[in-house]
Amino acid sequence: MRIVRTEGELREVLDFERRAGRTIGLVPTMGALHEGHLSLVRLAHESADVVVVSVFVNPLQFGESEDYEHYPRDTEGDLELLEGERADVAFLPSVDAMYPADATVVVTAGPLGEVFEGAARPGHFDGVCTVVTKLFHLVEPDTAIFGQKDAQQVAVLSHLVKDLNFRVRLIVAPIVREGDGLAMSSRNAYLTIEQREQALALSRSLQLGRAELERSNDASACERAMREHLAAATGVAVSYAAAVDPVTFGPPRGDGVLLIVAARVGTTRLIDNELVARAEPGTRNQERMRHAARG
Amino acid sequence: MRIVRTEGELREVLDFERRAGRTIGLVPTMGALHEGHLSLVRLAHESADVVVVSVFVNPLQFGESEDYEHYPRDTEGDLELLEGERADVAFLPSVDAMYPADATVVVTAGPLGEVFEGAARPGHFDGVCTVVTKLFHLVEPDTAIFGQKDAQQVAVLSHLVKDLNFRVRLIVAPIVREGDGLAMSSRNAYLTIEQREQALALSRSLQLGRAELERSNDASACERAMREHLAAATGVAVSYAAAVDPVTFGPPRGDGVLLIVAARVGTTRLIDNELVARAEPGTRNQERMRHAARG
Repeated sequence: MRIVRTEGELREVLDFERRAGRTIGLVPTMGALHEGHLSLVRLAHESADVVVVSVFVNPLQFGESEDYEHYPRDTEGDLELLEGERADVAFLPSVDAMYPADATVVVTAGPLGEVFEGAARPGHFDGVCTVVTKLFHLVEPDTAIFGQKDAQQVAVLSHLVKDLNFRVRLIVAPIVREGDGLAMSSRNAYLTIEQREQALALSRSLQLGRAELERSNDASACERAMREHLAAATGVAVSYAAAVDPVTFGPPRGDGVLLIVAARVGTTRLIDNELVARAEPGTRNQERMRHAARG
Repeated sequence: MRIVRTEGELREVLDFERRAGRTIGLVPTMGALHEGHLSLVRLAHESADVVVVSVFVNPLQFGESEDYEHYPRDTEGDLELLEGERADVAFLPSVDAMYPADATVVVTAGPLGEVFEGAARPGHFDGVCTVVTKLFHLVEPDTAIFGQKDAQQVAVLSHLVKDLNFRVRLIVAPIVREGDGLAMSSRNAYLTIEQREQALALSRSLQLGRAELERSNDASACERAMREHLAAATGVAVSYAAAVDPVTFGPPRGDGVLLIVAARVGTTRLIDNELVARAEPGTRNQERMRHAARG
């Protein structure tokens, strides 16, 4: 595995691969890699000849009060894991190279970047769109792999690619969970043993929401079930629990309903989600009207 | 010359050229082509094997009160001129294809997009950055040619390319003027014979500003000279007249000083500029302090 830290070296390495006719798959990460990331690397291998994994904690996607400074960093451990997955290139740019002091142009996500995660983390998705645009221009990948764990990020980046006519093909990898259901996240490292147990309320609320939706096909009842479970859980402060359209994040309208939850466990903000296929399309209109009535 | 209207056909045509090892030069235009545009096409031929000229009146870079609806359009005349210049591809996308109703992601220029032209035309440079990003992604050019006539656009797009790690090389073409000094512009078509004469105040003010700067090396005196000339001109309403750094559009700091003017002649907004090399670098610090004192 080649470890690359500068734009010049990256372009040189990848131009060589491109000239040899090989396709390139990109896995953008913020490091602190876990099994979830490694599943993305494996998908990248399936989709392209050369796999590039970027490891860059992107300051632009953290709010001022957020955990940028303390975000877990373990470059040595990350590189070892990437070697194990036979990644071809690990790209580790510096913050100064990615964001020179005079940089001003940014990519903004628009309305979809202002709800749910975007409402809780103002500017977060603009930071994501900007860094992903930069990485796409640096790596010029044929495919890019993102995790469904960050469902709203997937929706925003699908817009980015379509709205700005990027040529890259996005591939979305399923959520990887611990044995007890907790969605894998680099931020799980922040949790104490007690909090680790409390954090199960997120995935459990999604299961309750799924059961309610499958039973009643009523998005409001489903949201209520998730919210009530989270509200009753010890040590958990709900940020949101909603049933949304997986593309627009507005009221659910098609066959798929995305259940999304976010909550703080101690000082750690966690998110999780679950995509549910709708059972009874006959009741969809009724459901849509209910949503419209709620505003 | 191939006339292409869809993304699919464009990519097919250009992929063929790229596979044959040919480089691609892009000239983005809003049509209503004049000698200024044609000089860009000639520069494109010098910089690349295949010349693509896009003709697209970009709604996103017009304000609500601006002349988007009435902007001069002459597709037939444009295509004839481009044939004459041996352009290889004319790309004429539709507004609906470029901006689907659900598009939300935009590229924003930042502070440089908020002064001078950006202050007079809020959102203008965000619209420019967004459409140029899209065109860069569609055409994937090796070089892109822009006119110095739109000096602030050149500065903003230089930022775009650098800040977002685009690989394209920007080439800036000198201003093309009529025999009497009027900078060529598609908007000159709006002018009556009388206004056409009055519009000369812009280029004349730049010449006065240049003379003053070369004489005194005093940016404030230069700005005063330009402003006074424009203020005294019949039928001309000044928007701004300033001596700025050609890169930052802040106070001039290096060897080059950019003189910029904008004014309304009748209902037509015109801009012009002139780059002046500084004669006496010894006085630069003094000058900088004067600017700082003015805020």
